[in-house]
Amino acid sequence: MNVREILRSKPEGVVTIAPDASVHEAMRVLVRHNIGALLVVSDGAIQGILTERDLLRTGAEDPQRLLQGKVEELMTRDVITASEGVELDEVMNIMTERRIRHLPITREGKPWSMISIGDVVNALRNSSEAENRYLHSYIAGTPL
Amino acid sequence: MNVREILRSKPEGVVTIAPDASVHEAMRVLVRHNIGALLVVSDGAIQGILTERDLLRTGAEDPQRLLQGKVEELMTRDVITASEGVELDEVMNIMTERRIRHLPITREGKPWSMISIGDVVNALRNSSEAENRYLHSYIAGTPL
Repeated sequence: MNVREILRSKPEGVVTIAPDASVHEAMRVLVRHNIGALLVVSDGAIQGILTERDLLRTGAEDPQRLLQGKVEELMTRDVITASEGVELDEVMNIMTERRIRHLPITREGKPWSMISIGDVVNALRNSSEAENRYLHSYIAGTPL
Repeated sequence: MNVREILRSKPEGVVTIAPDASVHEAMRVLVRHNIGALLVVSDGAIQGILTERDLLRTGAEDPQRLLQGKVEELMTRDVITASEGVELDEVMNIMTERRIRHLPITREGKPWSMISIGDVVNALRNSSEAENRYLHSYIAGTPL
């Protein structure tokens, strides 16, 4: 199962924000979409990623910056991405080894979607359910 | 594989905070431990849970409250918990259906640990690696 298949049930696209948007605006966008990370994009190119963890780190250090800062001051610039054809196992490896919970997905080198650790667990749950249904039906000798 | 087995590799205990601690202190504790949720405890009893998402929601609404608020004003009071004997599949179901990424674990009814969605993915990765090693060794006919 690859990323393209996993994300089939999700709305297309990725939620983005401009580097010069305020941190407060970024928090509002995250809450509105009920997500934990925004891709920071300008002129169609990925500039960074802003996650809940970036906001938390800033808040712990100097909460005032959450009121006055801009996205580009807080975002992580070194963005790890994967292409839409990457397999689920590889996504799990990247997330565990790099300790990240959001992986921006590219199609033909351009930002296309975002896979979260929640999507990964959901996909694993669905695939093991499907496998169980198949095995039960196989053992019972009845068609699916 | 149950929660007790999954958490064997993690340091024992759960990071807690008092309900009347400041939100700023909570952010500092989260960052210091590199975690996304704190169990709010007073007199040994669970009062709530404070997660990154609670902080984000508050920040989106009124960032000033991150500077001046107390933990008990922001925390989620309706805490979903599971006992140490719960199976991994059940943890995945709870996390997906309730849309949570942290599940406090109890032992004999008392707060004992916390399992995160990152722990779940790591456990699944390790178990499928172990299974692969077993299958390879089985096919090759060599002992493990």
